[in-house]
Amino acid sequence: MTESYNFENFSCPLPASHPDAVILGHGSGGSLTSGLIRQVFNKYFHSDALMQGNDAANLALPAGTGRIAVTTDSHIVSPLFFPGGDIGKLAVCGTVNDLLTAGAVPRWLTAGFILEEGFPIERLELVLASMRDSAAEAGVEIVTGDTKVVERGKGDGLFINTSGVGTIPDGFQPGGANAQPGDAVILSGTLGDHGMAVFCARGELGIQADITSDVAPLNAIVDALRSAAPHTHVLRDPTRGGLSTALNEIAEQSNVTIELNEASIPIRSEVASVCEMLGFDPLTVANEGKLIIIVPDAEKEAALNVIRQAPYGAQVALIGRVTTAGKPLVTLRTALGTHRILDRLSGEMLPRIC
Amino acid sequence: MTESYNFENFSCPLPASHPDAVILGHGSGGSLTSGLIRQVFNKYFHSDALMQGNDAANLALPAGTGRIAVTTDSHIVSPLFFPGGDIGKLAVCGTVNDLLTAGAVPRWLTAGFILEEGFPIERLELVLASMRDSAAEAGVEIVTGDTKVVERGKGDGLFINTSGVGTIPDGFQPGGANAQPGDAVILSGTLGDHGMAVFCARGELGIQADITSDVAPLNAIVDALRSAAPHTHVLRDPTRGGLSTALNEIAEQSNVTIELNEASIPIRSEVASVCEMLGFDPLTVANEGKLIIIVPDAEKEAALNVIRQAPYGAQVALIGRVTTAGKPLVTLRTALGTHRILDRLSGEMLPRIC
Repeated sequence: MTESYNFENFSCPLPASHPDAVILGHGSGGSLTSGLIRQVFNKYFHSDALMQGNDAANLALPAGTGRIAVTTDSHIVSPLFFPGGDIGKLAVCGTVNDLLTAGAVPRWLTAGFILEEGFPIERLELVLASMRDSAAEAGVEIVTGDTKVVERGKGDGLFINTSGVGTIPDGFQPGGANAQPGDAVILSGTLGDHGMAVFCARGELGIQADITSDVAPLNAIVDALRSAAPHTHVLRDPTRGGLSTALNEIAEQSNVTIELNEASIPIRSEVASVCEMLGFDPLTVANEGKLIIIVPDAEKEAALNVIRQAPYGAQVALIGRVTTAGKPLVTLRTALGTHRILDRLSGEMLPRIC
Repeated sequence: MTESYNFENFSCPLPASHPDAVILGHGSGGSLTSGLIRQVFNKYFHSDALMQGNDAANLALPAGTGRIAVTTDSHIVSPLFFPGGDIGKLAVCGTVNDLLTAGAVPRWLTAGFILEEGFPIERLELVLASMRDSAAEAGVEIVTGDTKVVERGKGDGLFINTSGVGTIPDGFQPGGANAQPGDAVILSGTLGDHGMAVFCARGELGIQADITSDVAPLNAIVDALRSAAPHTHVLRDPTRGGLSTALNEIAEQSNVTIELNEASIPIRSEVASVCEMLGFDPLTVANEGKLIIIVPDAEKEAALNVIRQAPYGAQVALIGRVTTAGKPLVTLRTALGTHRILDRLSGEMLPRIC
């Protein structure tokens, strides 16, 4: 990775070269920073706005845009690379999916990097390539960025913040407060894959399992819902805290009771086994490529059909319904026919997973 | 700061209480995270979008908006509190000022927090109060946020990413590539205050100096320029890397030579003294409340007049001009009448200042 240095032409701003690991000067804002951007970041990110080199991207909205969605997420996952993805893919998909939950068309991402002194440039490039590929799949542009460097021991290799902006088409505006009694609760696929893939990748407990993160951009599912289920009430991605936490949030925002049917919740057997072995509840484990979709009963079948045919939607399932208004509660009808209350995740089941 | 705990009503989602320092569970996404948000963050941030509790803010654009500006900055300053400001004020003002440099009206901010386990909640509250106050002064709303927690020793107390969105009115679109020969180069005030205030606050070299950071939101200056100098070519805030680096970037983007007059560059005597003592060049030290304004010569006087009357503009000075096109270069006419080439900052003069 080492570039040849050029100390000859002192009269022009030098395109600073970079060593093969991050040094403090890469965060100075001076020639080492611009060298890192030109020689490393620019190999992967090419949007017009970024190439203009201004401190803010100047972006044209599609004609007639009346509303935008804005979201942010910092990513601190450990390890940085895991089966099915890495921090870069996570940073892009997480923010894209959050925009989708507002009914938005994801368009533009920002990328803020906090690098620890000594982080290998080669690993940074792997992450950037992953961000480039995920952004291409999700149809978003990285339009502005920021790079900071902390001293060795003051970070953990690499943290990435991505913020996102999307445009909201008229007439499709799901929100957490819109769930109504009678609505169907749909889950786009299996639970717990991301959290358990990252956990196993740490290797702390010596558990070897064939589990791959589900991290993925879910644009196609939401695009399909726009026409198939135009009255979709709620979209939410059950990330940190898992399905239980996300549904409890929705139950509170909408002031409704949600009843789930345990037998219909899809969970891969490998994930279920590892969770059982370790005492984790898969309903509170993080997902990074799943959506909760709450729709009027009349649009339930149409929604299930289009999701099943969309990328990342093959395992879609109808998992429950909104029963009554007035009491924010999530209950689970177990395989034995009993009911139990599903609470939010409490405490820190799995830190540093996203 | 300790709240009383309530373990009695298990049938409803508990508003989780928080201890007086950050714990890993605050980043889990579950009830401890929502407790921290409700009991700490919500005391300071109140926008409608934030209160809706969705993963993305759904925002109405002013009618007729055709373009938006988007920017991001992660803030890693050490120490977190310094004369004139703190990481919270910095995080808001830095992003607001970046939006302003695109000619935008700053409107919405995101806030992403990376907390280190053990960080005192009391200090977090001071930072949040500072963000609230700076956002109010700058006329922006914090519309969505994210909180992550890293294990002790994997962070440095608190990192904050702020991303910003502004709307760009028609007809005023400065950009780094627009400087033209004949243009006047204006600086809104004194150089080096922020960088040297933070440096002295570290106390590493035992230097005691009466230097206060200039960190401030510069909306009023840009608002005044919209009417007084509608053909403003370039706006840029000389943050990391200072004036020299920012002007070199502009010289490259516009492919022009910029000539500065050393005697006209305002620098406080305390800042000049400390810089001289330590061998720093104040032209490469970071500022957080200053703007470089490049305008056609015909609008120079009008620009100087309105900036001088605006908040944070009293020390405005005409510091140079754009001389020729075709060669990206920044030169300084010294007090002795000689010329020297001003380069970007190279290496790491002052890490962790913003």
